[in-house]
Amino acid sequence: MSESLQDQIQFLIEIDKLKTIERKTRIMHGERLENDAEHSWHLAMMALVLQSHANKDVDILKVIKMLLVHDLVEIDAGDTFAYDTVGHTDKYDRELQAAHRLFGMLPKEQAEELLQLWLEFEAKQTPEAQFASSLDRLQPLIHNHQNEGDTWQKYNITSEQVLNRNREIANGSETLWEYAQQLIQKSVDQGILTKS
Amino acid sequence: MSESLQDQIQFLIEIDKLKTIERKTRIMHGERLENDAEHSWHLAMMALVLQSHANKDVDILKVIKMLLVHDLVEIDAGDTFAYDTVGHTDKYDRELQAAHRLFGMLPKEQAEELLQLWLEFEAKQTPEAQFASSLDRLQPLIHNHQNEGDTWQKYNITSEQVLNRNREIANGSETLWEYAQQLIQKSVDQGILTKS
Repeated sequence: MSESLQDQIQFLIEIDKLKTIERKTRIMHGERLENDAEHSWHLAMMALVLQSHANKDVDILKVIKMLLVHDLVEIDAGDTFAYDTVGHTDKYDRELQAAHRLFGMLPKEQAEELLQLWLEFEAKQTPEAQFASSLDRLQPLIHNHQNEGDTWQKYNITSEQVLNRNREIANGSETLWEYAQQLIQKSVDQGILTKS
Repeated sequence: MSESLQDQIQFLIEIDKLKTIERKTRIMHGERLENDAEHSWHLAMMALVLQSHANKDVDILKVIKMLLVHDLVEIDAGDTFAYDTVGHTDKYDRELQAAHRLFGMLPKEQAEELLQLWLEFEAKQTPEAQFASSLDRLQPLIHNHQNEGDTWQKYNITSEQVLNRNREIANGSETLWEYAQQLIQKSVDQGILTKS
């Protein structure tokens, strides 16, 4: 067995841990919290299905790759809640360290490719990163709307916070931002999201 | 909101159910069973990382798409255990019906694309389907080796059954089949898989 393959298999065993990292949102058809691995799968499916709504032409393989790896750093750094302003102060540093450790398990060229992909996703400058990031924001909105305001109510999140946090969906897709605003308004009208 | 987007969102809500479909294998870093959504994510990561070991040049986007959607049919048809010969007699019919219902929720062109992808995966004739299928077979082997023979012991599976079931890994990747055989032999040597 070549050394490369051995390293790749060790990496694939290590990232199985993503299945144990819990998010704040519940799955839609059940009571338990969603984990990062199934979240990443769901986002990749969203990219596949919603790609025509991106503002710009995107390299869809790159978008999907980004979404598959974007949360791996949480194996070391944990899930930082979207509305946790304190947790966000050192989030990037913690995650960067994790990215170096995890991707560093792979053969050099591959490690570099995945690290660059993750950095590109985080920087949100390219059309691919912006579209991928839009989906990452939109998904919990759909979950919370389906789950009758679940996380919003549990953490006393207001519609103003949700609007501010998610406004950047427009950078990746104006169409999906319009849809997101409708979903937020509908949630307020249904009384499952408090108007600030 | 356009009718297409509405249908796409309904599909994305429906497929959240994949997170509730349990497989027979346990996750590697925990006691619970793996579900189909996180399994699909793990396979997509394997495709990304192990692509250079495919027998033939593959369109990696197609391989990843196949792996993301390959188990969706289990939302209706349930997970059929790899070694359940009775369950396999009507597996394809049950799954085909599920494929039509689920992909049929999408706008026509998209429904057709995903149905064709799924059919191609099932037929195992193209290099992409063969490589995707190899990964789908290899992953539970790695899980069972990591989990000290877990599923093999629970269902009294012998090394001969494991070899027969997984021989077709070679169709997608000779290298991975060689690795799989080493893993099976190691499992026998460690006493976690019964030699038939």
